[in-house]
Amino acid sequence: MTFTVGVDIGGSSATAVAIGEEGDVLDRYRVNGRIEGGRQVVASALAAIRSFHLEDCVAIGVGVPGLVDTTTGQVTMAVNLGIGAHPYPLAAEIGEALDVPVIIENDVRAAALGAHESMRLAGDAPDSLAMVSIGTGISAGVVMRGELLRGTHGMAGEIGHVVVDETAALCRCGQRGCLEAVASGPAIARAWPKGLDGNAATALFAAAAGGDPAAEKVAGRISGYLTTALTWLAAAYDTERIIIGGGVSDAGDTFLSAIRDRIRRQAALSDLAARRLRPEQVTLALRDDPPGPRGAAVLAARSLPTHSLPTRRVPPARTQATNAK
Amino acid sequence: MTFTVGVDIGGSSATAVAIGEEGDVLDRYRVNGRIEGGRQVVASALAAIRSFHLEDCVAIGVGVPGLVDTTTGQVTMAVNLGIGAHPYPLAAEIGEALDVPVIIENDVRAAALGAHESMRLAGDAPDSLAMVSIGTGISAGVVMRGELLRGTHGMAGEIGHVVVDETAALCRCGQRGCLEAVASGPAIARAWPKGLDGNAATALFAAAAGGDPAAEKVAGRISGYLTTALTWLAAAYDTERIIIGGGVSDAGDTFLSAIRDRIRRQAALSDLAARRLRPEQVTLALRDDPPGPRGAAVLAARSLPTHSLPTRRVPPARTQATNAK
Repeated sequence: MTFTVGVDIGGSSATAVAIGEEGDVLDRYRVNGRIEGGRQVVASALAAIRSFHLEDCVAIGVGVPGLVDTTTGQVTMAVNLGIGAHPYPLAAEIGEALDVPVIIENDVRAAALGAHESMRLAGDAPDSLAMVSIGTGISAGVVMRGELLRGTHGMAGEIGHVVVDETAALCRCGQRGCLEAVASGPAIARAWPKGLDGNAATALFAAAAGGDPAAEKVAGRISGYLTTALTWLAAAYDTERIIIGGGVSDAGDTFLSAIRDRIRRQAALSDLAARRLRPEQVTLALRDDPPGPRGAAVLAARSLPTHSLPTRRVPPARTQATNAK
Repeated sequence: MTFTVGVDIGGSSATAVAIGEEGDVLDRYRVNGRIEGGRQVVASALAAIRSFHLEDCVAIGVGVPGLVDTTTGQVTMAVNLGIGAHPYPLAAEIGEALDVPVIIENDVRAAALGAHESMRLAGDAPDSLAMVSIGTGISAGVVMRGELLRGTHGMAGEIGHVVVDETAALCRCGQRGCLEAVASGPAIARAWPKGLDGNAATALFAAAAGGDPAAEKVAGRISGYLTTALTWLAAAYDTERIIIGGGVSDAGDTFLSAIRDRIRRQAALSDLAARRLRPEQVTLALRDDPPGPRGAAVLAARSLPTHSLPTRRVPPARTQATNAK
């Protein structure tokens, strides 16, 4: 039985999954530690991938932040990984080390495909979805009828630096009040430092739900910014579902309720607004089936000839589980 | 020689073109007069279409405002045409009257395809484009690699009722400060009543370019709202080009310059903003080749079996020009 590997690389960890021919997770592995620069990206990816026995691995997909050229396999502008304007040949370096075909994609776009795949396997595939990742950065990936929307320069969904509040703080990009500057994980931690020992978003939205007036004010402002972004995305893409992922989504139900309340308030004012975006269209990414590595594995499978996994004979003495560790 | 017909229906006119097999405009016809209700929509479309000799017409495409179900050929929510939530069977009524296959599409989406087709015929087809129509309403249509992006409910690009200024006027939809309420043709006419005898946008942007301080203030506010919308669309779609059409775009170069200046100011602050949207990506729709009817004709041609026009013998005594009047 053959399998594919999907890897999701973030600023502080690389997570890999081995996915069997039926979409089943055979095994997963996570490498923790700050990743800085192209060489460490490659080393972390290799460490995570090599935890599997690769003999029957037919392709590897890697999701990475930044601007990804899927044709050349190069990455630029992965600022949180220390990769700048100079293209880093990520697919070639991983592929040559392992002698397995490697395809790379932007991490949030891979996660959008992974979320879609999880729903498909559960018999509930939406016609389309947008995955909005709210973590160190903010961006969106879109799946329409099973296909990723990439845009002409591979930048579709790069919404992090659209200005949502001209009166707010300067962003490191040079503008004032970018979405990322006011509603990302680090922005929430600055606005609610009481939660700094854990996840600031979890602390903030729990305190707001508990009736703390200061928290209510900050949470209201931040969920307002995020709802503005979700509304523009709903109007632009008209997807069946919007999934929120990224570190901030770990804040869970109190966070989701705050966003849905905002959407509900818009909808109460206007039939048009109600038709465009309904609260129940917005959900959180599944924590027990992280979409990033799964989506990268789907891209790996799709990169194979005929878009399906080749059939190989399984050696009789080995089971599927031991193949993939 | 066969041809297709494309029709664009607005609140006060229906424009039809006959398009030959090579994309050449054989003839065009315009019916003026207020159009109100489904029956008048059909009557105006028929009047415009019947100006051509339809013997060799193989398919008709109709672009109409509102929510269009391309499968059933029904229209809803074409508020400016007096069609509401009850579906109106527009394609069937026109098709039965003429005994020619009819396909319908949202007018702005058809215009996006028409703009793309004009550029393709000129040998300059972009990989993708967004058409933003700013007239009585505001909405966007998107072409990616030659295909329309429709969204799951046919509402992709319906940006007119996203709130861009919570402190601004109430919109007829019930929200406050929707894009349409502050930057559509009627909104510009309210904000700059000095231009009411002609196109208010033309008067406003000309006065602002001429240094009138009151006009500069109003024009600055409106171009700011519109640039916010263009920025969100650029971030969401990442199209190669953005084309502005609709009545407000008749204001021409002074209007375009005001928008480009805003984009240039964003880009000067931030490399990320500069990479996302460049002033020269934004242009105005061609006035001598209106994209709406042309795009509707492209959809008509694509609706035919094998996506190409069938070959018919041309009767020797008639020329192409007389065929299409």
